[in-house]
Order: sequence, then structure tokens, then C-alpha cells
Amino acid sequence: MEVDKKEELASDSSDQTVNPWEVSAKEGGKIDYDKLIDQFGCQRLDDSLIDRVQRLTSRQPHVFLRRGVFFAHRDFNEVLDAYERGDKFYLYTGRGPSSEALHLGHLIPFMFTKYLQEAFKVPLVIQLTDDEKCMWKNLSVEESQRLARENAKDIIACGFDVTKTFIFSDFDYVGGAFYKNMVKVAKCVTLNKAMGIFGFSGEDHIGKLSFPPVQAVPSFPSSFPHLFPGKDKLRCLIPCAIDQDPYFRMTRDVAPRLGYSKPALIESSFFPALQGENGKMSASDPNSAIYVTDTAKEIKNKINRYAFSGGQDSIEKHREIGANLEVDIPVKYLSFFLEDDTELEHIKKEYGEGRMLTGEVKKRLTEVLTEMVERHRMARAAVTDEMVDAFMAVRPLPNMFE
Amino acid sequence: MEVDKKEELASDSSDQTVNPWEVSAKEGGKIDYDKLIDQFGCQRLDDSLIDRVQRLTSRQPHVFLRRGVFFAHRDFNEVLDAYERGDKFYLYTGRGPSSEALHLGHLIPFMFTKYLQEAFKVPLVIQLTDDEKCMWKNLSVEESQRLARENAKDIIACGFDVTKTFIFSDFDYVGGAFYKNMVKVAKCVTLNKAMGIFGFSGEDHIGKLSFPPVQAVPSFPSSFPHLFPGKDKLRCLIPCAIDQDPYFRMTRDVAPRLGYSKPALIESSFFPALQGENGKMSASDPNSAIYVTDTAKEIKNKINRYAFSGGQDSIEKHREIGANLEVDIPVKYLSFFLEDDTELEHIKKEYGEGRMLTGEVKKRLTEVLTEMVERHRMARAAVTDEMVDAFMAVRPLPNMFE
Repeated sequence: MEVDKKEELASDSSDQTVNPWEVSAKEGGKIDYDKLIDQFGCQRLDDSLIDRVQRLTSRQPHVFLRRGVFFAHRDFNEVLDAYERGDKFYLYTGRGPSSEALHLGHLIPFMFTKYLQEAFKVPLVIQLTDDEKCMWKNLSVEESQRLARENAKDIIACGFDVTKTFIFSDFDYVGGAFYKNMVKVAKCVTLNKAMGIFGFSGEDHIGKLSFPPVQAVPSFPSSFPHLFPGKDKLRCLIPCAIDQDPYFRMTRDVAPRLGYSKPALIESSFFPALQGENGKMSASDPNSAIYVTDTAKEIKNKINRYAFSGGQDSIEKHREIGANLEVDIPVKYLSFFLEDDTELEHIKKEYGEGRMLTGEVKKRLTEVLTEMVERHRMARAAVTDEMVDAFMAVRPLPNMFE
Repeated sequence: MEVDKKEELASDSSDQTVNPWEVSAKEGGKIDYDKLIDQFGCQRLDDSLIDRVQRLTSRQPHVFLRRGVFFAHRDFNEVLDAYERGDKFYLYTGRGPSSEALHLGHLIPFMFTKYLQEAFKVPLVIQLTDDEKCMWKNLSVEESQRLARENAKDIIACGFDVTKTFIFSDFDYVGGAFYKNMVKVAKCVTLNKAMGIFGFSGEDHIGKLSFPPVQAVPSFPSSFPHLFPGKDKLRCLIPCAIDQDPYFRMTRDVAPRLGYSKPALIESSFFPALQGENGKMSASDPNSAIYVTDTAKEIKNKINRYAFSGGQDSIEKHREIGANLEVDIPVKYLSFFLEDDTELEHIKKEYGEGRMLTGEVKKRLTEVLTEMVERHRMARAAVTDEMVDAFMAVRPLPNMFE
């Protein structure tokens, strides 16, 4: 199937823009994910695939799978085919370290990747693109590297297995086999093509043009000779938000020309801002998101003041027609983070039919997020510099497939 | 002086094209070097500067200086000012390893750099741009690296001092401090600017756009933390052929924005092809050049058959009006490689006035080049793999300024 040939920017053919630097829906509305799947040329992650994950891993699929947070994929079925035959794969995800404090949306790929690592018993590489943020956010090299290390602590706090996980900063790790692959990829992508995929213009600096190969090459096992020597055919699976798809469309286009396997992808929708579902949360507005550094009081205040409610204006009207769950942020957030399917269904039914009020739902969400953030805070506080060094050491992972 | 602001391609404003990938004169004529100096905005290397080199180094200036082979510069005077005050500098030159066998033109910057290293007692870094040739010549990574190592043997055979010289391949060395500087440079150069300086087009691959920072950053001492720790202000002097000027115009433009010193340059004209003086020698025509691997018989044959003569058609006419030294290749080659000023002047006078015949001049040139190539051949045969490893080891050079 020639799905990878579609390379239109979302902005070219519709009113929504989704690329690694901008996510915006038509006139402040919701992102149309069906349209996005069609535009990008990826596939919907359907129930049969989720059932298959359950069968292969002998455990309940993650909430993010059950509830469609991860909703699209490329070749995930092939990765499962191979896994069924006994062929393992490795995971690759990453983060651009542009700020010190992560919000809940930042945690989603890492929470999901941790689940995949545990369920499939596979190794994982995590790229911290400090070079990218140095170039795009105009941070100094030193500040980008500091943020990368701070972010590594939050990532480690998600519970990754140090015997199966390699975290690296581009400024530290680019070179050698990794750089050779960067050059190989760069040779296969014309300037016109890069401008088409990423929307670069003549006024952008050449660092931006140089970066896509840096994000591409962790998809190839030969970029990690200390991890995968002689395993050049090992398949890579990338869990990421769907705004990263352009990088991997390019990577998948190039891979066969280099004799490499195309990376498979499993892609999530965006975690909505407190104010409503038109795009991602914004780092420039602290009240648009719950941060992992927020206190219990801040979480409570943010939810009560800013979380967009689908409840009705008056109690009478609410009792009569119920909440509009389609736009309600507390219910949306609960559907990401409330593990208990039965309780979630109960809340949706009671709230949707007007028997439960917004205040009650917000109270439950506050409990869930406070507990989650507190758990993260404690886990992060336990992450020592030695642990960061251990995760980031260039070393073999002898038992990574066990 | 704002000489660095001029960035026109030679091809934009005249009929000659000089850039790192193409050197061609107007309608097959000679390169107009005066015009080039004006177009590029560099300075002519005049006699007073050469006298100063003699005074500062207490030795006769190299033939290539005395005879104007190195004819242009940028800030060479500033480097000498600083040297006079007791501030040393370091040398940076390089080679793109696109072929196994070097011709005489390839040796010129290395012969001159060796002289500078000895005369000024300064350290030297030599960049082998295997990544560049992999991208431009479509060589495999492995083949580019093999050629880099083979070329390193020819370079070492020129007599560099291993205690003062670091030779590196980009595929081996890019990373760490070097990569950080690449990112810093890339942030300062827009795509439009790169296309203007280097003549790239939309059909060129992004690897080409990514490369200029790789050639730029050896100009900054902080790219070599194992050599120049704490010496961030150390000035860099780059001996090179003038076709490399665009890279260093870009570098000099960017340097102050990064808080770095601009590299100084000392630039040579091109070594002409045997067939005549319209550009550089061509690797695709083995009869256009004398190679360091040619036998005595091949050298003799090439000179006799292909070296363009300024002598007249008949002996009678030659005795009457003499040779046209302006177009005569044997005399040109002797002016590069015959050390003895008195003998060279004698040949030019006798030949120019018709008393000496082309055959005699070619015979003398054959002797000079045969001896030079034989000397190189023996020196290269003595270069062991261990010596290559020693030059290419990432290590401090404790006595590099002595």
C-alpha cells in the first residue's frame, strides 16, 4: 500500500494545521482526526488490533488503547505479526526539552511507552532533542542540555526499566554510527521535499533543514551499535503524538532506499487544554494545563476555574437535559486518567443524564489528578543524578528482550 | 572593514565561476584572480606582508609565497600582529577524500601548511570531509572512510609533525563540542543565505544544506576540547585554495555572533591542468594531471605529450620571438616546484628569448617532478597504519606551541 506517498501538510488541504510546531483546528473547533488519518495516510487503530494486543501480551490493554487515545498507526499490525512469530522489536520515543516543568499531556507518550515496554518486554530508546530546542526556541546549548537532564528525571519517574532503556541527548550522542545514518538519510531528501513535508521557508535557518535526519535515525537499529550489534533488521515501533508523523513519513520513505526497515508507528490524539479541545496545551499559558509540579491547591483551583464544562447554566436545565459530554473537559480528562472503566461509564451516564453535577465530576477529577501528580512528584524526587547517569550511559543492555 | 558582506557568487557577476564545486573561466580562458579578489572581498597578499613573514620566522618565505601561488588573504596581517605580540595561532586545512590517488594540485595546500607549521611552530588540525564526499560524490559511507584513511597517508607523507597535528575524519569526529558548534553556526545561516553563497537549489538534498557548518566549525578552537581547553580566543589561520572561500565567508560572518574570532585565511590560486590554465585539474581525466602514484615513465610521457607549450611552431620562429611564458605549462609548473630562484629566472629568460627550446624545459620539469613524486612515494610507503592511528587519535598535544 502506498500510504506513505501522501505528504501534504494538513494546512494545504484543509482548515486544520497539524505539524510538529503547530496544531490548530478550524476556527477554534476540534481537530478532525478522521480527516487527519486520511490526509497523513496512516491507518485507524481498530478493535481487532487492540484485541490482538491483549492476546499477545496476556494483559488488559492500556486505558489509552481501550479509550482510543492512541487511535492511529502505521504497520503496527506487521510488528504484531512478527512478534507472534517470535521476532521482537524495540521502542523509540522522545521529547524536545523546551521547558523545565512537564504538563500532563507531556506524560502521555511516556506512560503509554512504559506500558508497551512492560507488556512486550522490549528495549526502548528515548531521544531528548536538545539540539532541536536550541534551534527552534533559541535556547543556549547549555540551557537546552540542562533542560534535557531535568526532563530525563521526569521521564525516569514514569517507571522505565533501566535494564531495558537508553535515554540520550542529541548534543551528547550525535556522532559515529548515528551521524553516518544522519548523512545517509539527508542524501535521500531533497530541499523541495523537506520544505513540502515540514513547511520550511527560505527565511528559516539551515539548522532546521538539518534536523529531520536527527529525529529520523533512532528508527534504525544501526544508530545504536552498543545496543543492537548485528541486529540491523530489528523492527522499530514509535509511540508518539500524531503531530510527529511528518518526521516518520519522511523516515519511512527513505528507509527502503537505505536497506533499512520502515519504523512502525502508534499515534495518539492531543491532550486538550483545560479551556477546551482546540489543539494542544500551551506552555505559554500556565492556566491552560495541569503541570506535574502543581500543588494540590493549584490543581483544585485550575480545575474549578478553568476546566471547560459541558454542564448546563442552571441546575434545573442540567437536571433536565444533562451535560454535553462531547465538550466537557473534566470527563475528557477522566477518560485519560481514571483507570476504572466501570466508574468512568457510571460518571458519563449519570453526568450525561443530569443526575450528576459539574462540581461533583470536577471533585472526582481533582482527586484523580492530585493523586497522580503526587505519585509523580514522589517518584521524581527519588530520581538521583546517579540514576540519570545510569539511564544515559552508552552501554549494552544484556537482558533487554527478557 | 566590511569586506565580508560581499557574498555574490562569482558566476552571478562575471563570466567566471569559482565555488567549492566548480571552477571555470570565461570561454576557456584564464581565471581572473584580480576580479576574484574584488568579487569575494578578500585582500591581495602583498610584498610587505611576505617580508614580514620572513622577519617573524627568520627564514626565507616558501616558494608559494615568493611566487604568488598563495596570493590572497583575509586578516593574515592581524594574525601576524598578534604573533608579533607573542600570541600564537593554530592552522586548519582539509581535504575532501573523493579519490585514492592525489595529484600535484592536491599537495599544494599541504606542502604550504607544513611550511607554516614549521616556520611558526603552531598546531594544525586537518579535516577529512568524508561526509561531504559521501553526499556529493554518492560514495558509500565505508568507501568515503576508506578513502579518507588512504588520503591521510599521503598527507602524513608531506612531513607533518605528529606532536603538533590532529587529523580527523568527520564520520569519526562529528559529535560533542564539534556538533554543538555546528548547531550554533546553523542557527545563524538562513536557507536563503546558504542558497546565495553556495548556489544550492531546491533539487539539492538537505545533506548539502547541512554541510557548511561542518566545514565551518574547525575554525573555532572550542570544537577541539582535547586540544585547546580554555583557549577559546586562539586565532585560526586557514591555508586553502580560493574556491573554498565561500565556506569561510559564511564562517566569518557568523563568528562574532557566537562570540568567536573570525578565522584568518591565506588563499592560493589553482594549479593548472597539463593542457592549460582554464581551471583546476580534473579527476575524471587522468591525463590532465600528474599523480603522486605516476611512474617516472608516465610523468615523462604526460609532460611530453600533454603539457601545453608556449614555444613556437618552428625552431626558426622560436629562436626569433621566443616562448610565450604566459601560457606555457612547463614554466608554470617549474614556478611551483623548482626551488632555485636563480635557475627559474634563467630558464624563463632563456626560454622566453628563444635560446632554450620547449624540449629542454620539459626535460628539466620531468627531472623536478620525478624526483618530487619519487620522494613522496617513498615517504608514503613509510607511513604505517600505526602512524595514521597516531595522527588521528583524539589526544592532547602537550608541546604544540614549541
